[in-house]
Amino acid sequence: MIELVRPVKFEDVDAAGIVFFGKYASYAHEAMEHFFDGLDGGYARLILERHVGFPAVHLDVRYASPLRYGDTLRIETSTAKLGNRSAVLRYRMKRASDGVVCAELLHTVVTSDLRTIQSCDMPDDVRAIFSAHLEA
Amino acid sequence: MIELVRPVKFEDVDAAGIVFFGKYASYAHEAMEHFFDGLDGGYARLILERHVGFPAVHLDVRYASPLRYGDTLRIETSTAKLGNRSAVLRYRMKRASDGVVCAELLHTVVTSDLRTIQSCDMPDDVRAIFSAHLEA
Amino acid sequence: MIELVRPVKFEDVDAAGIVFFGKYASYAHEAMEHFFDGLDGGYARLILERHVGFPAVHLDVRYASPLRYGDTLRIETSTAKLGNRSAVLRYRMKRASDGVVCAELLHTVVTSDLRTIQSCDMPDDVRAIFSAHLEA
Amino acid sequence: MIELVRPVKFEDVDAAGIVFFGKYASYAHEAMEHFFDGLDGGYARLILERHVGFPAVHLDVRYASPLRYGDTLRIETSTAKLGNRSAVLRYRMKRASDGVVCAELLHTVVTSDLRTIQSCDMPDDVRAIFSAHLEA
Repeated sequence: MIELVRPVKFEDVDAAGIVFFGKYASYAHEAMEHFFDGLDGGYARLILERHVGFPAVHLDVRYASPLRYGDTLRIETSTAKLGNRSAVLRYRMKRASDGVVCAELLHTVVTSDLRTIQSCDMPDDVRAIFSAHLEA
Repeated sequence: MIELVRPVKFEDVDAAGIVFFGKYASYAHEAMEHFFDGLDGGYARLILERHVGFPAVHLDVRYASPLRYGDTLRIETSTAKLGNRSAVLRYRMKRASDGVVCAELLHTVVTSDLRTIQSCDMPDDVRAIFSAHLEA
Repeated sequence: MIELVRPVKFEDVDAAGIVFFGKYASYAHEAMEHFFDGLDGGYARLILERHVGFPAVHLDVRYASPLRYGDTLRIETSTAKLGNRSAVLRYRMKRASDGVVCAELLHTVVTSDLRTIQSCDMPDDVRAIFSAHLEA
Repeated sequence: MIELVRPVKFEDVDAAGIVFFGKYASYAHEAMEHFFDGLDGGYARLILERHVGFPAVHLDVRYASPLRYGDTLRIETSTAKLGNRSAVLRYRMKRASDGVVCAELLHTVVTSDLRTIQSCDMPDDVRAIFSAHLEA
């Protein structure tokens, strides 16, 4: 499990005064970028130079408790499932101040060649990171 | 079913050159705002003056085909399920040029008093719109 | 002058309850994309196939009156100045309901080859659109 | 001067492959939130409990060099001018890897009561922070 702590930003809330429901996907992607910091050149080099990325095929979000401006989020990222070319990332999002669970996301991605958006083999260094954080 | 047609915007794509996976929730919300255009004062008055809104409790997104800048999206919004205080909205997102399905979202919302973010009764005019577009 | 009418979206407001000050640049870009609808394939083909775009070198925004969710915006786009490779776009943003000016933006762009982000000659069809909407 | 270091995010780039010109305002606001971390409860408590905020009246952005995914940004925030109820914030944005200036923003704000969006006196703790970082 890899952890990311980040404050809710001023512009993340919507006209109802709580964090917009679509923002959780942005938070998840940020946590995924952080998850892959161990790659040489990080997620950016994977995308831009190696032309490999992880387009989503499925996203499941359970919203448990609203987030507000002023809250700080703690995101715990782990590998829920590891396949041949695909993987399922789990993001547990908690309010940092009291540990209350705000949302849980399951994010199914497929290793893809970004020049064609076709699935491709998972590079070894990518698999090593997914494996290192695979849930028991 | 209520339809919304809208182009993909320049800033909707990400560093992989396709529409960011979290943007589909924004498209869905835009379609939901349009879905409720028939309310007196629309969704805005419901939120701001009547203090009633629809926080999400669950979001399920199946991504079928990537969207790119230059594509136009046709979103078909319907009520997949209608409960007492909750409802499930379905958004079928198709590329307007050829009708290819890009994504399908199921969005479970709970009628809530936005001053407390607690569930409340569903107003009659809201229920009428959900009912009018309930799938067979 | 070319006009674009669009509602303020639910997620455009910030924690202070008014449209986020950075959103006006998004509105402006949307108006610019619309401004170039007359190009064959629109702004998207210019960017993606002809590899020509308009990176900004300067942006000046005067905020006059706050926008809120429920407001609809009318954006009047014109060419304030037309140079050899550069141009200044002006966006007058008004609240559609009463014509109150909300903001005025001046946006200086340089015709650029997007493969190198270096300035390049302005294509004739692009110049024709800038010229057609040049202020007296 | 207060410094904020933050990576460019995957979704910050646009269809031209560089950071969207409107994103710099988001970066600036994030730097401003950080600038006010010294307030009791930070910017969030100022906004949400004290109902005081800083709507923009003017924004001036000079873009010097494009930012790409993979870049990290160093933002230096200072007070360029301090008035009675208004202030001008300056944000110098540099690429962290080599110090190249990417953009400079001047952001004129007016201390306002957010319940009415009318100007109000600047609280002493706010003035203290502006003063501490006033340019010579």
